[in-house]
Amino acid sequence: MSAPRSSQPFERILIVGCGLIGGSFALASRQVAGVREIVVADRDPEVRRRAVALGLADRAVASPAEAIEGVELVLLAIPVPSMPDVVSELGDRMPNDAVLTDVGSVKSRLSPKIRELLGEKAPCYIGGHPMAGSEDSGIDAADGQLFQGATWLLTPTGDVEPDAFERLSGHLHAIGARVLAVDPERHDRLVAAASHLPQVLASALMAHASRRAEEEGALLAVAAGGFRDVTRVAASDPELWRSILAENRVAVLAEIDGYLEQLASVRDALEAEDWGTVTAFLRAARDARRALPLKQIADTLHDLVIPLPDTPGALAAVTTALGGTGINIEDLSMRHAGDGTRGALVIAIAGDEASQRARAVLEEQGFSSHLEPR
Amino acid sequence: MSAPRSSQPFERILIVGCGLIGGSFALASRQVAGVREIVVADRDPEVRRRAVALGLADRAVASPAEAIEGVELVLLAIPVPSMPDVVSELGDRMPNDAVLTDVGSVKSRLSPKIRELLGEKAPCYIGGHPMAGSEDSGIDAADGQLFQGATWLLTPTGDVEPDAFERLSGHLHAIGARVLAVDPERHDRLVAAASHLPQVLASALMAHASRRAEEEGALLAVAAGGFRDVTRVAASDPELWRSILAENRVAVLAEIDGYLEQLASVRDALEAEDWGTVTAFLRAARDARRALPLKQIADTLHDLVIPLPDTPGALAAVTTALGGTGINIEDLSMRHAGDGTRGALVIAIAGDEASQRARAVLEEQGFSSHLEPR
Repeated sequence: MSAPRSSQPFERILIVGCGLIGGSFALASRQVAGVREIVVADRDPEVRRRAVALGLADRAVASPAEAIEGVELVLLAIPVPSMPDVVSELGDRMPNDAVLTDVGSVKSRLSPKIRELLGEKAPCYIGGHPMAGSEDSGIDAADGQLFQGATWLLTPTGDVEPDAFERLSGHLHAIGARVLAVDPERHDRLVAAASHLPQVLASALMAHASRRAEEEGALLAVAAGGFRDVTRVAASDPELWRSILAENRVAVLAEIDGYLEQLASVRDALEAEDWGTVTAFLRAARDARRALPLKQIADTLHDLVIPLPDTPGALAAVTTALGGTGINIEDLSMRHAGDGTRGALVIAIAGDEASQRARAVLEEQGFSSHLEPR
Repeated sequence: MSAPRSSQPFERILIVGCGLIGGSFALASRQVAGVREIVVADRDPEVRRRAVALGLADRAVASPAEAIEGVELVLLAIPVPSMPDVVSELGDRMPNDAVLTDVGSVKSRLSPKIRELLGEKAPCYIGGHPMAGSEDSGIDAADGQLFQGATWLLTPTGDVEPDAFERLSGHLHAIGARVLAVDPERHDRLVAAASHLPQVLASALMAHASRRAEEEGALLAVAAGGFRDVTRVAASDPELWRSILAENRVAVLAEIDGYLEQLASVRDALEAEDWGTVTAFLRAARDARRALPLKQIADTLHDLVIPLPDTPGALAAVTTALGGTGINIEDLSMRHAGDGTRGALVIAIAGDEASQRARAVLEEQGFSSHLEPR
């Protein structure tokens, strides 16, 4: 997908929590050149046993603190409510230059909490969220291909180490993901609309149909492909989703309200037999669904070179400005000046249109840049 | 002391309208023992040409009246609003003992209208509706396996000829469908809940997300498997759906209202931070989704997982390779990569022998696969 990277690979990785996401990350990371040891920390002895037996990890420990020494990347793949405890435990022991990331589905409350717990070590933390998953869960659902082509959201904040960002995004590229950097608040609004709302709607349809089936015995026997598609995610883990909805409550409520308004307007058009409105609605939805972006690997990559002032925050400002408009970072590296300070940030963007748009977005944010052919 | 009567197969079949459903019915019916001639009637000369070229039909005519003589089964696979005209045209010419059926998505207004137009011949009519389809349409989407394992609703009314019902349901079984007979009013309530409501909800989510994406540029780039599943049917033909919603307006309104109530109650629990109610809701939906009835197949099902290259035609190549050797696909789903592109195709095959044979057939076609227990 992208040119060979110059950033130093992570040799030792610690994955905290070995369910669907942690296990899939372990499997995918084993294929990455330079990775020497993958350690899994999980409270469940059976999960630890299986992690080693299935070849996901080189070894498995009960508590992450046991294995933190010499680790270069820590991935927290546990439920959001459990993360602060683990961060408190690891905090001081985080090796210098190690990168800490997580896969929590909600970021705006979690990110400052983790940074606060990390204290001086805060610049090693970059929040993350892979937009991949399944209604299945647990280590046995782990799949080394899960992140192929998936968007992996990163939420770097002001003083994040550019080196940390470069290494983490390099690793994510190596497991097949596309990195999109956004700030934590925007992250939460995006996933409220793209993930949390669909979950609520699917569960509500399943609950509604199930209640209706009490009166209409044949109802669920009649449910065909369309019904199954719409309700598929309703099979997901209720405890996990309760915690996601609790964490992102405000943004999800806003999306539900917007959706209720949309649905009520269709309902009213249907009641009024306003077929012009009904047809326009169906057409707009059809056109939008057909236009959903797919992977565009065939696109030519362009290097966007952005001279950076040597101040904290510049990297996060650049990457989140691009992410906010949906421009994927296909590759990222630092071009160092002769004296070893950062000279420029080099970001690879796929496609002519996106590259030009990226330049314009950065211009607005006060960053000059130029394009170089790769 | 007579032996159990096996119903007499239809030797000559006339299919009016050769789109997805009509074309699939033609393809499926060619495999049924005893079928000697399949004639397609379609207004579009290009469709007629393709129907014969693709081997769906023995011949194709512009108007159904041209080919009605000697026909034993007439299937109307045209939009509901066009059906009365065709029935008027055919009415008196329907051969004795011929069976007339249709695939209209709504029945309570259509069924008495058709019966009235048929007059004395009314007992030959049995309304029908296969619970199978796709967001694709047109003759090129036709698939001889479309009805395998699908529920085919029939809406026989009081004076229908038992012989007609037996022959029709025998034919539907022969093409792999499971017949479920309900009255026209119940039919409409069932499909309002199981099919028409999901369509409206999916279209409303797509419309809502598309509007939100105007403010949040990255929104649709973030849409992963869950969003894509929920909105898949939103890609369906808007004109077809306008006519379905118009025809089943009252029942659909009732379902939308029931759904709005359900969604509003979840919304209120979320706002009130009533986590007991939210969790109970998510659990009930999860349990109901997991309990959705599957086809009842005596043989053990095996999942055949086929990683697919992201190229057009791969899916069709796999399914036609299996279909071509008579291996039934008992269930089929896509395992999506995070960005919604196909990651792998998961096909359920009944029985050990057929599963192994399927692997061999795919191997010959250049597709690797592995079996997973279900």
